[in-house]
Amino acid sequence: MCFSLHLLATLMSADNHTRYLDRKRKVLMAENQDTVVFGVLNETSANESRVALTPDIVTRLKKSGVASVIESGAGIAAEYTDEDYTKAGATVTTRDEVIAKADALGFVDRPSTETVAQLKAGQWVIGILGSFTDADYIAALDKAGLVGIGIEKLPRQLSSAQSMDEMTSQNSVMGYKAAITAADAYGSFLPMMTTAAGTIRPAKALVLGAGIAGLQAIGTLKRLGAVVTAYDVRPASKGEVESLGAKFLDLGLDFSAGQGEGGYARALTAAEQAAQQAAVDEKAAGFDIVITTAKVPGRKPPMLLTKAGVNGLHRGAVVVDCAASDLGGNVEGSVIGEQVTEGGVKIIGAPYLASGVATTASNLLSRNVADVLVHFVRDGKLAQDLSEELDAAMVVAGRVESATNEEK
Amino acid sequence: MCFSLHLLATLMSADNHTRYLDRKRKVLMAENQDTVVFGVLNETSANESRVALTPDIVTRLKKSGVASVIESGAGIAAEYTDEDYTKAGATVTTRDEVIAKADALGFVDRPSTETVAQLKAGQWVIGILGSFTDADYIAALDKAGLVGIGIEKLPRQLSSAQSMDEMTSQNSVMGYKAAITAADAYGSFLPMMTTAAGTIRPAKALVLGAGIAGLQAIGTLKRLGAVVTAYDVRPASKGEVESLGAKFLDLGLDFSAGQGEGGYARALTAAEQAAQQAAVDEKAAGFDIVITTAKVPGRKPPMLLTKAGVNGLHRGAVVVDCAASDLGGNVEGSVIGEQVTEGGVKIIGAPYLASGVATTASNLLSRNVADVLVHFVRDGKLAQDLSEELDAAMVVAGRVESATNEEK
Repeated sequence: MCFSLHLLATLMSADNHTRYLDRKRKVLMAENQDTVVFGVLNETSANESRVALTPDIVTRLKKSGVASVIESGAGIAAEYTDEDYTKAGATVTTRDEVIAKADALGFVDRPSTETVAQLKAGQWVIGILGSFTDADYIAALDKAGLVGIGIEKLPRQLSSAQSMDEMTSQNSVMGYKAAITAADAYGSFLPMMTTAAGTIRPAKALVLGAGIAGLQAIGTLKRLGAVVTAYDVRPASKGEVESLGAKFLDLGLDFSAGQGEGGYARALTAAEQAAQQAAVDEKAAGFDIVITTAKVPGRKPPMLLTKAGVNGLHRGAVVVDCAASDLGGNVEGSVIGEQVTEGGVKIIGAPYLASGVATTASNLLSRNVADVLVHFVRDGKLAQDLSEELDAAMVVAGRVESATNEEK
Repeated sequence: MCFSLHLLATLMSADNHTRYLDRKRKVLMAENQDTVVFGVLNETSANESRVALTPDIVTRLKKSGVASVIESGAGIAAEYTDEDYTKAGATVTTRDEVIAKADALGFVDRPSTETVAQLKAGQWVIGILGSFTDADYIAALDKAGLVGIGIEKLPRQLSSAQSMDEMTSQNSVMGYKAAITAADAYGSFLPMMTTAAGTIRPAKALVLGAGIAGLQAIGTLKRLGAVVTAYDVRPASKGEVESLGAKFLDLGLDFSAGQGEGGYARALTAAEQAAQQAAVDEKAAGFDIVITTAKVPGRKPPMLLTKAGVNGLHRGAVVVDCAASDLGGNVEGSVIGEQVTEGGVKIIGAPYLASGVATTASNLLSRNVADVLVHFVRDGKLAQDLSEELDAAMVVAGRVESATNEEK
C-alpha cells in the first residue's frame, strides 16, 4: 500500500510536471510569442452593428498566441468600447495601422472590393466570403495574393467544427430576433390572457423552415405563449419541431430525401416548388404570425408564400421574411430592411436580424472566427494543410496545393 | 316516482318558459328598442392607434339595446375596417353625423377642447377625463351642458366595476408591451442559451412599480427567460411579485402603509422619495433591463432612477419608462416617445405602449367603455342615479344631484 501510494505520488508528480511545462509553454506563447496578429476593422455595411472581435475573445486569442489589433470604434455599435478592448489586451488603432500590422483579418460581412485593394499579399481574410455564389470575388482575392478562409464552406458536421460554426450561431440569433420582431409588430398578445374584460386567445404562429433559425424562432414564440406550427421540407425536422412543443404542418406532399448537403435542405425541383407554394399559401390562412427562414446556401431562397398566400392572411397579421435578399426572399413582396403593408398584412423583410442583437451575436461570431483562426495557427504561424478536411474545405483563395510541408 | 318525474317536467317547462320570455325580450330590445345611440370618433392624438369601439362590442351593445355609430376609418389603425363595423351592425358615417346622432360618445383619449365645442348639450362623454388633475376641463364640460363619465374615478374595488376597469386593462397591455419593447431594444438574449460557441447568461431585469403593468411586465420578462427582480412601495406587492417567480428587491427602507386609495400606491413624502431614489440608484447597477411603471393617478410620477442610477448601468442596458409624461417620468432624462442614449444606456420614454398593441388594447378598452355605458342605460335611456356608488363616483360633469327619480 505504501508502495502503491509512492507510485501514485510519482505518477501525479510526473503528471504535474507535464502540466507545468504545458502551462509554462502557454504563458511563454502568450507573453512573448504573439507571432500571429489578428486584425479587425470597423464594418462598413450600413446595416451592420456586429463586430468580428469582442473583448473576451481578445483574451482567449492571447492564450493561443494571437495578438489582436482593432480599429478604433469598431465595437461601439455592439456596445464594446475601445477601452474594453484595451483592457482585454488588444491594440486599438487606426484602420491603416490595423491593415499594416495584421497577418489575418476577420470580417462579419466580407470585405468590399475597396478594402480588398488595400490589403497586402499574403494576408489572410476570414469570414463568410460567398464562395458558393461569387467566383469573381474569390478570383479577386486570389489575384491579390490573399488567403481566403470561407466560413460558408465549414464542414459543419465535424465535431471539431462546431465552435467555428458562424452560420449556426448567427442563424440562432436571427431566429430569436425574428420572434421578438414579430411580437413587437403584432397588435395583439402572443400569450393567452384572461382578464375581467374578456379572454384573449393566444396568437397562432407559423414557422416555415425549421433549421437552426426556425427552431430558435419556434422556441421563442413558444416561450411567449403563442401556439406554433412549423414546416420544413426535410422529413427529419418533424421530430425536432414536435420536441419543441410545436405542431408539424402536413402539406400532404412527399419530398422525401429533402435533406441536402451539410444538413441543409436541398433545393426542390420547379414542380415540387410550385406544389409547395400552393399548399403553403392555402395552409397559411388563419395564422396571425408567419416567420420564414428557408435558405439554401448560395442559392436564391425558395418562394414559399406568394401574393395569394399573403392575401389569405387577415388584416394585422405579421410576416417576417428572414430570407429577404437581393435575389428575392421566401415571401412575395418582401423588401429588405423594410416593413411593407399589403392589405393590412405587415411584411417585414429582415435579413439583418442578427445585427439587431449585436452584443451577443458579435460575441458568438467572434468566438467562431477566432476558433477558425486558431485552427490555422501552426507552430506559431498561419499555415494551411490541405490534407486536413477543414483546410481542404475552407481555403477558398490562395490555396497552396503542394506546399503543405514547405509551409509547415 | 312518476309523480316526481311529472313535477320535474313541470318545473323544467316553467323554467324553459321563463328563458323563452327572457330571450324574446332581448330579441325585441335588440331589434326594436335601440333607443340609446353610442358614437365613436376617429381619435385625433398623433400617438393613438386605439379605438373606443371594436366590432364584437358593437354586437354586444346591440344586445343591450344600444346602437352604434362610428366615424369612417376610426378603427383602421387598430386593424378594424369600416366593413367589419358594418357587418357587426354599426352605422359607419362621417364625423359630423356621429356627433349629430350620438346620445353618448366614447373616447380613448379625452376629447380635445375643439371636439368638446362641437358636442351638443345633453350628450354624454365617456372616457378617462382627467378629473383628478384638470378641474378646468371638467368645468368646460359642465358649462357645455355635457354629462362627463370619468373612468379614472371608477371604484375599481367593486366587483361590478371589474369589467369596466380601463386602467387595469390598458396597464396590463402596457406592461406586456414594455417587456417586448425592452427585449427588442436589448442587444443580447433574454433567455439563457447554451451554444457550441459558449453559454449566454440570461438577462437580469428590474421592474420598478409592481402594479398591474409591473406584474404583467414581470410575467412577460419571465416568459422570455429573464431573471427578474421587482420593487414596489406597497408591502403587499412582495407576495404578488414572488408568486410570479420574481425576486422582491429589498431597499432596506420602511414605507409601511404604502398602499393608497383604490389599491394604488400612495404618494411618498419628500424625504421618503429621496431615500427611495438613492437606494434604487444604487441597487439598479448590474441590471441589463429596467422597466419603470410607477404612477399615482393624477400626480407627477415619482422619480425613481436619477442620472446617478442611469450612469451606474452598463453600456447596452435598456430602460423603459412607462410613466414618461409632460409632468416628468420615473427616470431622469426620459423623453416621451423617444429613445435617448445616455452613456450607452438606452432610455425609452414610452407612455404610448398600449397603443402599440392596438388591436387587443382596443378590444379590451372597448369592452370596458361599453360596460360603463350599459351601466347607465336605465329603462332604455341614459340616466344617472347618484345614490349608486358607481354613479356617485364617475359622474364628473353634468351631475344632476336631485334629479334621481325624475330622470328615471
